[in-house]
Amino acid sequence: MKQDIDRLMTERDIDAIVVEGPDGLGSANPHFNYFVAGQKLVGTVIKKRGEPAMLIHSPWERKQAEETGLVLIGSDRWNRQEIAQQFPDRLMAAVEYRRRVFSDLGVTGRVGLYGTISAGSFLAVTSALAQHMPHIQFLGEFEQDIISMARLTKDADELDQLRDVGQKTCAVVQEVVDFIRSGRAQGNTLVNTNNTPMTIGDVRALIGRELAARGLEAPYDVIFAQGSDAGLPHAHGDDTAALQLGQSIVFDIYPRPRGGGYYHDMTRTFAIGYASPDLQQIYDDVLGAMEHVLDGLEVGAPTKAYQDETCTYLEARGHKTIGRTYPIDEGYIHSLGHGIGLDLHEDFAFPTFQDRGDRIVPGAVFTIEPGLYYPSRGMGVRIEDTIYCKPDGTFENLTPFPKTLVIPID
Amino acid sequence: MKQDIDRLMTERDIDAIVVEGPDGLGSANPHFNYFVAGQKLVGTVIKKRGEPAMLIHSPWERKQAEETGLVLIGSDRWNRQEIAQQFPDRLMAAVEYRRRVFSDLGVTGRVGLYGTISAGSFLAVTSALAQHMPHIQFLGEFEQDIISMARLTKDADELDQLRDVGQKTCAVVQEVVDFIRSGRAQGNTLVNTNNTPMTIGDVRALIGRELAARGLEAPYDVIFAQGSDAGLPHAHGDDTAALQLGQSIVFDIYPRPRGGGYYHDMTRTFAIGYASPDLQQIYDDVLGAMEHVLDGLEVGAPTKAYQDETCTYLEARGHKTIGRTYPIDEGYIHSLGHGIGLDLHEDFAFPTFQDRGDRIVPGAVFTIEPGLYYPSRGMGVRIEDTIYCKPDGTFENLTPFPKTLVIPID
Repeated sequence: MKQDIDRLMTERDIDAIVVEGPDGLGSANPHFNYFVAGQKLVGTVIKKRGEPAMLIHSPWERKQAEETGLVLIGSDRWNRQEIAQQFPDRLMAAVEYRRRVFSDLGVTGRVGLYGTISAGSFLAVTSALAQHMPHIQFLGEFEQDIISMARLTKDADELDQLRDVGQKTCAVVQEVVDFIRSGRAQGNTLVNTNNTPMTIGDVRALIGRELAARGLEAPYDVIFAQGSDAGLPHAHGDDTAALQLGQSIVFDIYPRPRGGGYYHDMTRTFAIGYASPDLQQIYDDVLGAMEHVLDGLEVGAPTKAYQDETCTYLEARGHKTIGRTYPIDEGYIHSLGHGIGLDLHEDFAFPTFQDRGDRIVPGAVFTIEPGLYYPSRGMGVRIEDTIYCKPDGTFENLTPFPKTLVIPID
Repeated sequence: MKQDIDRLMTERDIDAIVVEGPDGLGSANPHFNYFVAGQKLVGTVIKKRGEPAMLIHSPWERKQAEETGLVLIGSDRWNRQEIAQQFPDRLMAAVEYRRRVFSDLGVTGRVGLYGTISAGSFLAVTSALAQHMPHIQFLGEFEQDIISMARLTKDADELDQLRDVGQKTCAVVQEVVDFIRSGRAQGNTLVNTNNTPMTIGDVRALIGRELAARGLEAPYDVIFAQGSDAGLPHAHGDDTAALQLGQSIVFDIYPRPRGGGYYHDMTRTFAIGYASPDLQQIYDDVLGAMEHVLDGLEVGAPTKAYQDETCTYLEARGHKTIGRTYPIDEGYIHSLGHGIGLDLHEDFAFPTFQDRGDRIVPGAVFTIEPGLYYPSRGMGVRIEDTIYCKPDGTFENLTPFPKTLVIPID
């Protein structure tokens, strides 16, 4: 939570953090959005240790800036025209502007840099600024940075938003199930009431409408992958393909409120009408692994243990896993989950190889998503819920949706 | 255009370009999207001078990777597990992975870095990599970088997309005008047919539906700002406010196809029912400035000249402008336009201060958007079209929508 930031700055001996919120990145800057409460504006957040965070903002955007609750400083406090006259080289003018900001605001010492930016201009300005301000040491934290660590533990207000998007996402999935149930079999193909094949494109259009009706959007798209596509974890599915009975369908949906906010992430695997014994067995193994993990979740436990246990569980049922085989194309080939919040994949992992020391802590929100992939057999299965570790150390499943493979049709 | 990249690399003595496309940034990475044709995938584009661009991609995303037309290299060509065992420190493992990629692909010499990334991890990896690969000089181009210069000039396929989004955006604006015309006056307030006040929130909901119906989205929101809000260029408008007769309403809309693609950007200023002589005069001055610029556009001309001319035109009509007054709160307070394409604001400017040497070139697509802002008088006016400089040096207006201040109501 935000109140952890000063403690983390002290622990890591960081005197100030600078969070860049340049133009052109929309809502893809979760570190910046975490501070500005999703307001759409251009600016820079600067926080010195032990002091409230400041926002340098355009005077044109003072209305949005006032909504952030941060200490506000108009960017016109420093005279760009005068700087431009003194420094005809535009890079040098940009460096001088930033130098004046840091000097006037007393930014010095070890300064961490954060936020989503353009690599080229960032590297050019930071390199030049380091030469001109030798008393500042600019730092990039590789991962598990201060802001990620604060964002890992969600507060009550964040949970309200996470629960809401979870319920709405489940409602969209239910609409899809109902739509599929409205079809009927013609041979092995599912057809609409007017006898035309029901395609993945039809389903995707429905998903788009149902998301929009609930104020949600899917900036990373939606996976609705059938048969051998279901055997590739990131194949999004072929819109021209008709729905087929008996095929595995991996339906992975990860929306957020339109324009930005907290994500939900859930996956169900379906088979229309019936499932072959082979598919049913794979499904039961994944569901068994899922329940094994969910039943065993404990606050304070290392995440790596759950990844290892999942490999052990699935190896015991005859599947190759990334725990013992690498590279690996078939079987259990990925990690068990990830943190989720203002970004779909946050910096909290159930690692396949190196243990970073991630532990389940109160406030953490993360996915659990075991899967088995057999593209050579034309099938794949993944099941995924979003889970919250409550302040009391118990767990709340934010994905209230049943886990049933077969969607029966008339 | 893409074929300019090798020439620019030669001119700038750059041996290779590396375009980062990390996870978590969705469609907010236009430099990367320019190469991968909007495919949603994680990866890195590497192009050596005189050679085709390569895409390093996850094997799970080979379907999307195949759609890009790039030379494909699976990221599993380098063994992450072995690297993890050799380099227990995760930063060092990331650096070693990247070192192997660059070594094996022959990336050496002066290497430009591009793409939208997280500041912290980028700085950490790039600094460490520079130490471990002293034969590579990593460069950040501050602005007008190679890819921006290529993106500046659009080809026929890009123009088709730009025209399409322009026509659809105009259709949405027409729906809003029709909606306002469906209201009637109750005193100075516009009311719906059921006698409730028509609010900005009502208009915004309509805009959302009409954009969605045309497959568009507005990742940066939409400006619909009335009265004194219209006097702040970036105020988005108060959803709870009822529409008032006679007030200036700045309606600035800048959507793109859902999930990514080419933007359109247009602004109209409206007054419902009537306009005061004061508002009409300001409107006529802005419209006059707009027509003066559009009539005078010439291929090869420096963009700075149009910004200067606009200041001269508006000063002659009694307005303060950023050309002679700084800082400035009222009058003509911003620059005349910007490049537009895969990003809303591209790296092509009509500069207020420093002239970077931008000139109007065939293939350029840009906005022209003069405005006058008088928050103290409760009004503002902006008019904006998106313009294309055709290969023959003539101009095409991509915003086919009339410019009329007053929306008459019954």
